[in-house]
Amino acid sequence: MDVSIREQIISRLNNLTKPVGSLGYLEEIALKMGIIQNKVIPDLPKDKRVYVFASDHGVVQNGVSAYPKEVTYQMVLNFLNGGAAINVFGRHVGADVYVVDAGVDGDFDIAHPKFINAKVGYGTADFTKGPAMTIEQANTSLELGRKIARNAIKEGADLLVVGDMGIGNTTTATAIAAAFGFSIDEILDIGTPLDSEGLERKKQAVVRALEVNNPKKEDPIDILHKVGGFCMGEMAGFILEATEHKIPVIVDGFPTTAGLLIAWKMNPKVTGFVFAGHKSMVKGHKILLDEMGLRPILDLDMRLGEGTGAALSIFLIEAAIKMIREMATFESAGVSKGSDNI
Amino acid sequence: MDVSIREQIISRLNNLTKPVGSLGYLEEIALKMGIIQNKVIPDLPKDKRVYVFASDHGVVQNGVSAYPKEVTYQMVLNFLNGGAAINVFGRHVGADVYVVDAGVDGDFDIAHPKFINAKVGYGTADFTKGPAMTIEQANTSLELGRKIARNAIKEGADLLVVGDMGIGNTTTATAIAAAFGFSIDEILDIGTPLDSEGLERKKQAVVRALEVNNPKKEDPIDILHKVGGFCMGEMAGFILEATEHKIPVIVDGFPTTAGLLIAWKMNPKVTGFVFAGHKSMVKGHKILLDEMGLRPILDLDMRLGEGTGAALSIFLIEAAIKMIREMATFESAGVSKGSDNI
Repeated sequence: MDVSIREQIISRLNNLTKPVGSLGYLEEIALKMGIIQNKVIPDLPKDKRVYVFASDHGVVQNGVSAYPKEVTYQMVLNFLNGGAAINVFGRHVGADVYVVDAGVDGDFDIAHPKFINAKVGYGTADFTKGPAMTIEQANTSLELGRKIARNAIKEGADLLVVGDMGIGNTTTATAIAAAFGFSIDEILDIGTPLDSEGLERKKQAVVRALEVNNPKKEDPIDILHKVGGFCMGEMAGFILEATEHKIPVIVDGFPTTAGLLIAWKMNPKVTGFVFAGHKSMVKGHKILLDEMGLRPILDLDMRLGEGTGAALSIFLIEAAIKMIREMATFESAGVSKGSDNI
Repeated sequence: MDVSIREQIISRLNNLTKPVGSLGYLEEIALKMGIIQNKVIPDLPKDKRVYVFASDHGVVQNGVSAYPKEVTYQMVLNFLNGGAAINVFGRHVGADVYVVDAGVDGDFDIAHPKFINAKVGYGTADFTKGPAMTIEQANTSLELGRKIARNAIKEGADLLVVGDMGIGNTTTATAIAAAFGFSIDEILDIGTPLDSEGLERKKQAVVRALEVNNPKKEDPIDILHKVGGFCMGEMAGFILEATEHKIPVIVDGFPTTAGLLIAWKMNPKVTGFVFAGHKSMVKGHKILLDEMGLRPILDLDMRLGEGTGAALSIFLIEAAIKMIREMATFESAGVSKGSDNI
């Protein structure tokens, strides 16, 4: 069945009025979207949504970030006021931006239609001294993420973006990836601007996290429990649930891709429904994407997170769908085929 | 004055609620657009237009393309009927698509509001046997391109895309670049799918073009006359005129960038007003862009032309402008600055 749809889509792509393959990666995106929807001519998304998962990371007390922890809380308010980059880009691509409190260290006394309270705790514990969260919290974060996706899909969402916000999130993402076996030296990088001593502190925090906690390489929940973050757990659950409903998800930078990594280790089929919105400047990002066989759509030296790169890529996914929906075929346009089409 | 505007824009960018520089190339695009408009907070374009310059190339009789020459004529009709990729992407970004007959070998008995008759001739002569066009035709093509840009700007156009269509256009573009001193072996590539014998014929055609015509390396008009194309002449004139009016132009793939190369050799200031929409799969493209100091916005393995990559990049240029227009500052949002901002 999938083979047949794949062949039908490729045949359609090759009959559009352009040299075979000349629209490059856009053709692969159109093919993947057609396979996801099981349609030769895929539909455009009608209800696009960005979910920014915010939480705090106990590891920040080791001086691994250029920003004070309070910025996580402040940025949630900025998201809800519409002033952050993800708000601007969400409006630009016609996507609603939801903000999830997955575990910010502070209470939001807020009734806002785009705010979702899914707090697992007031920030994780410092994983250089013990587990980041309990096993119960790890499972709760996965379940809350699944529930958010389920509700979104019930309400009609058909294209989802995951974004992440939380001072210290790239340190947690590095620890998760390292726990799965990626080389720390290969993936270590600054998230926000950080000097070389700060980067060394970040490395040592990850090294200690693995020594102190000894997470089991083949056990995603153990890794989430010992060196994870509340936002990564929720993003993993969100991705698992969405892809079980065959709803495509676009991941953003390094922290969201660490969330995807957890989901992928639990169900490798998720990548059939996931797009990599962009390649972050954080050097470990591309290494994780390569491992999962995902090619980023944009490459603009961005390193902001929040879902910004993923949100912008929606426009190109839509361009790919419109290509296959709207372009004339050689026959319909009366254009001669080249020798490569024979 | 320019220094002052530059500093004001950078200061504004650094005060938006994001780590300094974290929106990467988008920040450079916003800066360039602000400098072009001489505004700290640049305006969004209101009248976006794509001009697809179509013409035939006499060199095709040497078997340098996978497609028959008739496709140039047929594709012009496809553009006017709205069925080509550039039509789909033009609609997607809200840009009108104009089609210019710069020198197609055939007459268009057409009254279409988006069709512009600027025919210099019925295709160039085969430049492996003598000059592609007369010096008068070279000057005419530049002047016609200038006139098209002048009219567009008079009508209100404030963001322009140049696209190219013409079987054989990458062979002509290769000859132009080689005449300016680029190494043929470094820039030679297929345009549309072509086997290795075809590629060798393409190389030999360019080698012969240079031997037979001996174009003067420092004389853009001599190069256009001897090994150019009508579309490249018109694109060069178009770019020269638009940039003199400080209207930004986005170039597309290898043939449009050969047109830009001619303009740049006549006036190096043009690149201050030019954006490179994408990096084409045609390997010489990036080499030309590097020489002119232009960084492509998209990199999607596209090799279609027509202005497709450039048109899609409009969306990211608009995202960059919206970023600086709409994002909150640290002060306005009450967000703490990181240590990098001190």
